[in-house]
Amino acid sequence: MRIAFLFYDDMTTLDAIGPWEVLWRLPGVQAVAASRFGARVRTDTGLVFDDTLPFTQVAAADVLVVPGTTKVLPQLSDARTLDWVRAIDATTRWTTSVCTGAMILGAAGLLAGKRATTHWGAMKSLEKFGATPANARVVRDGKVITAAGVSAGIDMALTLAAELTDETTARGMQLAIEYDPQPPFDSGDASRADEEIRAKARALVAGGVKR
Amino acid sequence: MRIAFLFYDDMTTLDAIGPWEVLWRLPGVQAVAASRFGARVRTDTGLVFDDTLPFTQVAAADVLVVPGTTKVLPQLSDARTLDWVRAIDATTRWTTSVCTGAMILGAAGLLAGKRATTHWGAMKSLEKFGATPANARVVRDGKVITAAGVSAGIDMALTLAAELTDETTARGMQLAIEYDPQPPFDSGDASRADEEIRAKARALVAGGVKR
Repeated sequence: MRIAFLFYDDMTTLDAIGPWEVLWRLPGVQAVAASRFGARVRTDTGLVFDDTLPFTQVAAADVLVVPGTTKVLPQLSDARTLDWVRAIDATTRWTTSVCTGAMILGAAGLLAGKRATTHWGAMKSLEKFGATPANARVVRDGKVITAAGVSAGIDMALTLAAELTDETTARGMQLAIEYDPQPPFDSGDASRADEEIRAKARALVAGGVKR
Repeated sequence: MRIAFLFYDDMTTLDAIGPWEVLWRLPGVQAVAASRFGARVRTDTGLVFDDTLPFTQVAAADVLVVPGTTKVLPQLSDARTLDWVRAIDATTRWTTSVCTGAMILGAAGLLAGKRATTHWGAMKSLEKFGATPANARVVRDGKVITAAGVSAGIDMALTLAAELTDETTARGMQLAIEYDPQPPFDSGDASRADEEIRAKARALVAGGVKR
C-alpha cells in the first residue's frame, strides 16, 4: 500500500509530519514524499527536506496526503502540481488534505460538490472551489477526507489508519505516539477563542517565513 | 532568543516537529537545528533533513530541545553528542526533551536527582540516570522540562511558549495550529490501554526503520 505525500516549498511542516508519523509505520505501508522536481523542499518554518521523489517517479498511490501552507497562492496556480494531484487522485482509495491543503485539492477540482474543512482562517475560501465548508475537525465525503488546521492531521491520520488497517492497529499507533493530548490552554478552536486570541494567531501566522 | 534543537540520525520526526512548529514563529525566536556534523540527518521514518548546522556552529542557546528516537542506544554513548548537550545546557534558561530524548539528557548527566518523564515504554530507564520517573505528560523540575512520548512535545512546547513570551501569545499559537485535539480513539495513555493495544504499539515501534 503506497501513501504519497505532496511536499512543496513553503508547506507547513507539521501538516505533513503528523500524518507521516502515524501512517509510515503501519504494516504494509510504503510512504513516499513527492515534489515537483524532487530532492530539496524548504518548509515555511525554514526546515529543508531532501531526497523527495520527483512527480515523474510517483505515478499512482492508494492514499494521497496534501499538507497545507501559510502561503498557498503559488500552489493554486501551479499546473504541474495540480496535474499531479489530479493524476494521483485518479488512482487513490483515499484522497486527503490537512489545513489549507484542502485549497490545493479544491484548485485541482477535487472538492466540487463536496463537504470539506480546512484551517479556520481559510474556511470561506472553500466555497470558491464549489465545496461546502463543514465545521468539523475531520470531514469525510466519499473518498475525500479533509482535516482542519495543522495539528488536525494527526486526528485525520488515526481515522485513516483504522480504515487502512483495523481499529486495534490504529489504537496501537495512537499509543505508540502517546497521543493523549493535554493542551495547557483551551484556545485551539476559533469559535471558542476570543478576538484577541484570534488576532494574535493571525499575526503569528502572517509573521511566518522569517528567512 | 535562540532555541537549539538536537537533530540526529534515527530521531523521531514528530518529536522534533511538534515543538519546532509551535516555537519557530514566536516573536524574537530564532530556532536552529544542530547535528554532529551538520547537513543531512535521516529520521527513523526515512525522512531526510538537510542544512542542519554542525555542533561547532551552535555554542549556546536560551532553550535546548532534545527529541527522542525508537533507537536511542547509539546516542547514549556518543561523546560528541553528550558533550554538546552538556555545553548547551550550561548556557540555557530551559533544557527540554520529548519522548526518549529524556534518556539523552539523562546520559548527559542532566537528570540526576530530577523528576522527569519520557515515552511510557521507556519510563523505567530513567532511574538508570538518577531521575525519578513522574507519570505526567509534561514534567518541570527547575529549568528542565521533559515531555512524554512523541506527540507530548506539542503540549510541552505550548507550556514553554507561555514562559518564553506570554499566555496570550501561547494561546494564539495554539489557535494558529488549531490544536483542539479530537482523537478518534482513547488509546493514547498506556495506563488506560489494555494489553492488546500495548502489544500492538510495541510491535509498531519495533517494526520501525523499514529500510
